[in-house]
Amino acid sequence: MRAWHDKCAVFGIWNDPEASRMAYLGLYAQQHRGQESAGIVSLNQGKQIAHKGMGLVGDVFPAESLDRLEGTAAIGHTRYSTTGASSQLNIQPLTADLFSGPVAVAHNGNLVNAHEIRQKLQEQGAIFHATNDTECLLHLLARNPSRDIIRCLQEASQEIVGAYSFAILTHDRLVGVRDPLGFRPLVLGRRKLENGGTSFVLASETCAFDLIGAQYIREIEPGEIWWVDENGEHSARIALKSDRLAKCVFEQVYFARPDSKVFSLSVYESRKKMGEILSQESGIDADMVIPVPDSGVPASIGYAKQSGIPFELGIIRNHYIGRTFIQPSQSIRSFGVKIKLNPQSEILKGKRVIVIDDSLVRGTTSQKIIRLIRQAGAKEVHFRIASPPTTGPCFYGVDTPAKSQLIAAHQSVDEIRKFIEADSLAYLSIEGMMRAVSGTSSEFCAACFDGKYPTPLFGLEKEL
Amino acid sequence: MRAWHDKCAVFGIWNDPEASRMAYLGLYAQQHRGQESAGIVSLNQGKQIAHKGMGLVGDVFPAESLDRLEGTAAIGHTRYSTTGASSQLNIQPLTADLFSGPVAVAHNGNLVNAHEIRQKLQEQGAIFHATNDTECLLHLLARNPSRDIIRCLQEASQEIVGAYSFAILTHDRLVGVRDPLGFRPLVLGRRKLENGGTSFVLASETCAFDLIGAQYIREIEPGEIWWVDENGEHSARIALKSDRLAKCVFEQVYFARPDSKVFSLSVYESRKKMGEILSQESGIDADMVIPVPDSGVPASIGYAKQSGIPFELGIIRNHYIGRTFIQPSQSIRSFGVKIKLNPQSEILKGKRVIVIDDSLVRGTTSQKIIRLIRQAGAKEVHFRIASPPTTGPCFYGVDTPAKSQLIAAHQSVDEIRKFIEADSLAYLSIEGMMRAVSGTSSEFCAACFDGKYPTPLFGLEKEL
Amino acid sequence: MRAWHDKCAVFGIWNDPEASRMAYLGLYAQQHRGQESAGIVSLNQGKQIAHKGMGLVGDVFPAESLDRLEGTAAIGHTRYSTTGASSQLNIQPLTADLFSGPVAVAHNGNLVNAHEIRQKLQEQGAIFHATNDTECLLHLLARNPSRDIIRCLQEASQEIVGAYSFAILTHDRLVGVRDPLGFRPLVLGRRKLENGGTSFVLASETCAFDLIGAQYIREIEPGEIWWVDENGEHSARIALKSDRLAKCVFEQVYFARPDSKVFSLSVYESRKKMGEILSQESGIDADMVIPVPDSGVPASIGYAKQSGIPFELGIIRNHYIGRTFIQPSQSIRSFGVKIKLNPQSEILKGKRVIVIDDSLVRGTTSQKIIRLIRQAGAKEVHFRIASPPTTGPCFYGVDTPAKSQLIAAHQSVDEIRKFIEADSLAYLSIEGMMRAVSGTSSEFCAACFDGKYPTPLFGLEKEL
Amino acid sequence: MRAWHDKCAVFGIWNDPEASRMAYLGLYAQQHRGQESAGIVSLNQGKQIAHKGMGLVGDVFPAESLDRLEGTAAIGHTRYSTTGASSQLNIQPLTADLFSGPVAVAHNGNLVNAHEIRQKLQEQGAIFHATNDTECLLHLLARNPSRDIIRCLQEASQEIVGAYSFAILTHDRLVGVRDPLGFRPLVLGRRKLENGGTSFVLASETCAFDLIGAQYIREIEPGEIWWVDENGEHSARIALKSDRLAKCVFEQVYFARPDSKVFSLSVYESRKKMGEILSQESGIDADMVIPVPDSGVPASIGYAKQSGIPFELGIIRNHYIGRTFIQPSQSIRSFGVKIKLNPQSEILKGKRVIVIDDSLVRGTTSQKIIRLIRQAGAKEVHFRIASPPTTGPCFYGVDTPAKSQLIAAHQSVDEIRKFIEADSLAYLSIEGMMRAVSGTSSEFCAACFDGKYPTPLFGLEKEL
Repeated sequence: MRAWHDKCAVFGIWNDPEASRMAYLGLYAQQHRGQESAGIVSLNQGKQIAHKGMGLVGDVFPAESLDRLEGTAAIGHTRYSTTGASSQLNIQPLTADLFSGPVAVAHNGNLVNAHEIRQKLQEQGAIFHATNDTECLLHLLARNPSRDIIRCLQEASQEIVGAYSFAILTHDRLVGVRDPLGFRPLVLGRRKLENGGTSFVLASETCAFDLIGAQYIREIEPGEIWWVDENGEHSARIALKSDRLAKCVFEQVYFARPDSKVFSLSVYESRKKMGEILSQESGIDADMVIPVPDSGVPASIGYAKQSGIPFELGIIRNHYIGRTFIQPSQSIRSFGVKIKLNPQSEILKGKRVIVIDDSLVRGTTSQKIIRLIRQAGAKEVHFRIASPPTTGPCFYGVDTPAKSQLIAAHQSVDEIRKFIEADSLAYLSIEGMMRAVSGTSSEFCAACFDGKYPTPLFGLEKEL
Repeated sequence: MRAWHDKCAVFGIWNDPEASRMAYLGLYAQQHRGQESAGIVSLNQGKQIAHKGMGLVGDVFPAESLDRLEGTAAIGHTRYSTTGASSQLNIQPLTADLFSGPVAVAHNGNLVNAHEIRQKLQEQGAIFHATNDTECLLHLLARNPSRDIIRCLQEASQEIVGAYSFAILTHDRLVGVRDPLGFRPLVLGRRKLENGGTSFVLASETCAFDLIGAQYIREIEPGEIWWVDENGEHSARIALKSDRLAKCVFEQVYFARPDSKVFSLSVYESRKKMGEILSQESGIDADMVIPVPDSGVPASIGYAKQSGIPFELGIIRNHYIGRTFIQPSQSIRSFGVKIKLNPQSEILKGKRVIVIDDSLVRGTTSQKIIRLIRQAGAKEVHFRIASPPTTGPCFYGVDTPAKSQLIAAHQSVDEIRKFIEADSLAYLSIEGMMRAVSGTSSEFCAACFDGKYPTPLFGLEKEL
Repeated sequence: MRAWHDKCAVFGIWNDPEASRMAYLGLYAQQHRGQESAGIVSLNQGKQIAHKGMGLVGDVFPAESLDRLEGTAAIGHTRYSTTGASSQLNIQPLTADLFSGPVAVAHNGNLVNAHEIRQKLQEQGAIFHATNDTECLLHLLARNPSRDIIRCLQEASQEIVGAYSFAILTHDRLVGVRDPLGFRPLVLGRRKLENGGTSFVLASETCAFDLIGAQYIREIEPGEIWWVDENGEHSARIALKSDRLAKCVFEQVYFARPDSKVFSLSVYESRKKMGEILSQESGIDADMVIPVPDSGVPASIGYAKQSGIPFELGIIRNHYIGRTFIQPSQSIRSFGVKIKLNPQSEILKGKRVIVIDDSLVRGTTSQKIIRLIRQAGAKEVHFRIASPPTTGPCFYGVDTPAKSQLIAAHQSVDEIRKFIEADSLAYLSIEGMMRAVSGTSSEFCAACFDGKYPTPLFGLEKEL
Repeated sequence: MRAWHDKCAVFGIWNDPEASRMAYLGLYAQQHRGQESAGIVSLNQGKQIAHKGMGLVGDVFPAESLDRLEGTAAIGHTRYSTTGASSQLNIQPLTADLFSGPVAVAHNGNLVNAHEIRQKLQEQGAIFHATNDTECLLHLLARNPSRDIIRCLQEASQEIVGAYSFAILTHDRLVGVRDPLGFRPLVLGRRKLENGGTSFVLASETCAFDLIGAQYIREIEPGEIWWVDENGEHSARIALKSDRLAKCVFEQVYFARPDSKVFSLSVYESRKKMGEILSQESGIDADMVIPVPDSGVPASIGYAKQSGIPFELGIIRNHYIGRTFIQPSQSIRSFGVKIKLNPQSEILKGKRVIVIDDSLVRGTTSQKIIRLIRQAGAKEVHFRIASPPTTGPCFYGVDTPAKSQLIAAHQSVDEIRKFIEADSLAYLSIEGMMRAVSGTSSEFCAACFDGKYPTPLFGLEKEL
């Protein structure tokens, strides 16, 4: 069950006769990373055209809007707000008319020193319109007397701290930038055109490439600045390569689509392995393994395979969830969960079931699910979480609840088990998780699980 | 993959302080049976209030509309058109102001002699507004000089032929009627109220009961007319009980939600059994069993269990499908299928895969899916259909393509295999399907598979 | 100030390559007769196409809707409800699929025995959908075994009593019918086409002809049934010619647009004469004559001319009135009137003013206007009404308040003067009004002024 | 007939419990000054809340929006674009989050050196979002290190040249500023509150005061900066008082509502005098004087009074003009004008008519009107314009056509007469116009008539 929200997805394309349509599809494929707003900026003969709106990609862009977004290059963005209120002005890509020409920026991540930068710039007379951190970058670019955007970005990267994967469009190039620690993914691909040419594509996840028929080339590397212009591809660095990286392990645990390759790993395979290792670490005898759909499915398949206990779709998910849903005023037990999830009593009656979920945040939803499973007649309910206990908030672009709301920050596993009313409860260990992603703690950021934040926090830790 | 559309779902509720909100939820849970339009008619102190519109339940009913639908009884309907153009006037429940008072009718099914009845009534001066078959019933009721609605319905049932499960609301009662052959499901439940009272509920599928916290009592029987009024429950018959029934087997194969009980059978279990028997009938060696999501999942689980071949989610379904989707003008291979389904090359590369789908209609979608699976690197693709070859259209409320478009009506299994480009293809046998639903050909209608239509067709067979 | 609402306008056109666009314009020009809803039905090769909606003509018909309304004949209707609630189902033209083919009816007027007819038809099994009187005509036509629509209309006219000007479209002709007493106007015109042909046009008012460049031919006569088909024009009667007519004098007083010719009279000239005669009957010395805009303007010009007292636009009307207008919660004196009307203190300060309005219904608006004029500094306010005291409701298609709300039904002229706080008040006499329209009480219906209703009322008089 | 568009109206209110509702009404009353967009910014406990949108005031502000605009102070703006494309970003009031707090600016007028200022600021790293001149002021304020907004405004006024009446809201005050030459009006009023207090009000025209029940105090003087804060009213100057003023005479001729007092003059009286003087200057014998409604009405009344020739409403204006109007594809003569204006043949037939319009720009509309009048049967048509020939564009906030489109810039009066097909044509003289407004050329800007632009134009004169 979804309880986390990633900040966004970015997309960029260069030299494509249907640039804005491809951007539309690329955002569409990455809709799971942000449903609050969407925007595309296209580049047509040196001029930029923007269309942005609140809502899902399919609603924000009627056909006329894509016709209007003429040109052969474009960037796009879908967003679920972390910093910045939910308003029109915050919809990305942000654009500005600099002295060197128009620039548009799409940002996945979060700058931890945005507040400091903003205050300094405002004192110098800069006018801020949006309330998000990305606007800081625009002002840093605008104030740089150099007209070389690559140099401006390199200099700006000396000032900003935090997580950022940028797709940037100027009047003459498409740029991709990834922060030195590599928090958020950013992948590069190419698309063969009918006319024999090739277009370059940037995206947060490879599933965007699959939809538009593009081929995956490689990741933009941590600390790399990549761009393409009429002379072809270029690459430089904004920082020296470092051994310490901070790839977000939660992309593997929950955020990314299972059919994406993120940090060069199949997300589906990572999750299956998390289920397998979870079974090894905390196996228990039962009649069936059932996922909390859809996010718990891959780990359940892994768990079932490893344990030999049959996999069953014991809970059916209703995908016809409309935009607004009207609650009955009279109480129906566990109603909020029931709208989406319906445990099957025909399957569960009298059975001992292992329920697999990807993560556990507040515990309230898990409690409701377990109650519904028991109402459906299950004899025993064993809850297994395919990630470690979540003990801290994220400051790098994930919309997590405050620490006070994270049940594992304050309660022991057995206390949580009692709260959610499970017969048993077990989490995947941090080591198990790292094993599943074939990684180490010096490559991945697992701060939400282990509290080791890989950057200074500039006082943000006090806010939550 | 969805290729069939059922005509609709009905819902009815009596003696509930939140009647229209429950109807809303009951339709919401049955949204899969019809996404074209939705409507609710409530009964407040002898007067009926209606709200209807084109679109999904969540969009048709803003909160104000439910506030306006006052009263303690209601019926509702969601619809996917079979007969009748897509227009406002065809949205059900249909209502009329009869001499005996207001009446509202929600209909799941299709009357095969509607054209004959309509012509006769028009000659007599009846004015038809909608273009659907259900309006015939209203005119038959209106023209009956009796003011006893039960008697009127019994007499009308002598004239109408075909499939019908009706939920009917008058000024003083809620009525449920099911045709003598029992084509379409109709179930009865009850809901305990906070005030200690009980409300009665009618629905097409039991999943509607689960959402509103109602308990399943029983099916309305074929040929039964059931009603509830201020004196309680009543039951009578519109026809003698017969041995020959015609329960739609396709409800089990595809239409109904897997978490519903239909014709007293768990749909999920029926489908798992179809997969198991399919494996027994047409097993083949392979590296994995993958479903065409979501409809192929239960049969795949059954097939995998029976065969011992691992189940994998080799194709990921994107559920963020907006209402309108803009196509790129440039061709992207198999684009239409790709929007929803993305085969995972990391999983499929070099593998021999068995792909399970619930049914196969035209073959064009299956061809695209198989091509995508091969592009993802699969070595062998064995297609298995968890139902028999579809050889004929349905005249009883299922929106099937014309016979000319049903590939199995014209081609052999091997010809179809070649067309869809599979390495092997096998269907479930009719006997296997009947075994899976523990039934016989004299209980179920399987006309779309075996051509044995259980009623006269009044010339309809020439139309398609 | 508008306080009365006419029921509607009708329009019809035959043999025009842009029939639905002309209908659109014809309704647009007659928008003042009904702003609640609008509809057009076109005829294309024997089939009818309808588009209807709530709201103003310009909003109900987007360009696509007119493209869809193909064909060379059309009828249209704008409506301000008298009988029948404000609902979708009541939007005219009403349509039905009769045994003889499709028929569409647009009606201006009101049938006083609709309730009796309806009850009789319902007893015979007719299903009524709308709540308006016009649906009775449809059922009478449907039940007539004759397939000759002219004969059906002649026979139906024997049953219906009241005010009716119909524009009717069948599969092969356009028909205009006016009731024997001729309550409501209905005019016939012709339009020269670019291709040399001629189209025939029906409308409630001649202003519709002006906009589409059509020429006025004549009125459809009281009791006449006129039609045009592929063989040309035809005329017959539904009733013998009678000396007693009942042309609605209020069309001249208020309803019709001043630039229309109604009952062969220029409305502007009639109103100017009303002002002249009012000045003769109730002249008083003053500094200026000012109209309540816009409806009082022609009478004011007449009054000023006759009296020699200067005409001034002492009150300015704001025409930017949006659809919804939000009231301040704090009280602003006479706010409701002020939104539309602003008296000019620069003009009125210290002056004795004669204020002319077309009619006076409840008196509350007049009171507010007079207060505003005094606040603006006027020394004396003499109110003059260019019609007689309104003492009774209308049952023939005008949406009047109940008798209890008509101030002149219960109070003397001097009591009214005190209530509206005028220094003097005078009405035009009934004789003066008849003189202004060059008519007599046996030609015009002036029931709202003199209580002489020209038909039986079938109990309606008790309702109001 | 409207052919000119003023740039906008401003409104401001301080210390009113219903500040945003009053702003809504104040904009509503000034809707004639700009129909493209509208916006309100309210001040609630030091924080600003904004709501803006494209369209009419009544549509931009649903009731919820006004509920959201909490606080006791507000400014508002309606706009018809002069500089700046029609886009969301250009909707005023413009807002910014300065270091000293939030500021919102509503601007009526046009800065003639905006392009120069913008270029200089962009070179310094300022980011511009809107394309209008008003954003320059925001940047000038933001870059001023002083936190005293009054001082910042005084310093900014040294840099900006052109026409400006500003209503400005900060976190602690409401400010009104009028440029030293006083091009555009800005008036100050007060409103007595139910609680005994007083609110201060700023508006472009006094008609806004009338609607909300406020009293006119005085004009903000040319070169004055007025503000109100918790300590009460204050006034200072941005420039020394000068003898040369440049009040826009076109406000009197056409822009302002006739019921407004502008530059201390009744607009209605000014226009009547223009008509009187026009009659003295260019009288001719005729049967009637008719206005082109509505803008020509006051001058016609003056002309008729002076000449003794009867005033008639010979052309009726249809006020039901929807937002979008669909044209017939077939040609109807003079269709575009006919939609709004319908000459009455009953009045005009065989008559010699004097037609009065407020101004004449391209001549094409006048030609159509005259043709319609002749079609209606007039024997002679004498056209009289109640202002001088328009020979040049405006650079101070009026949306005029380019000089090439101003017929009087290129043709003699007699050539124009021939073009518009009038029997005679005469304009008011510049001296006559000045006499009507009791002014001189050193007080008023009449550049559009006499070519004497009262400021440098910074190259703008080349653009048009």
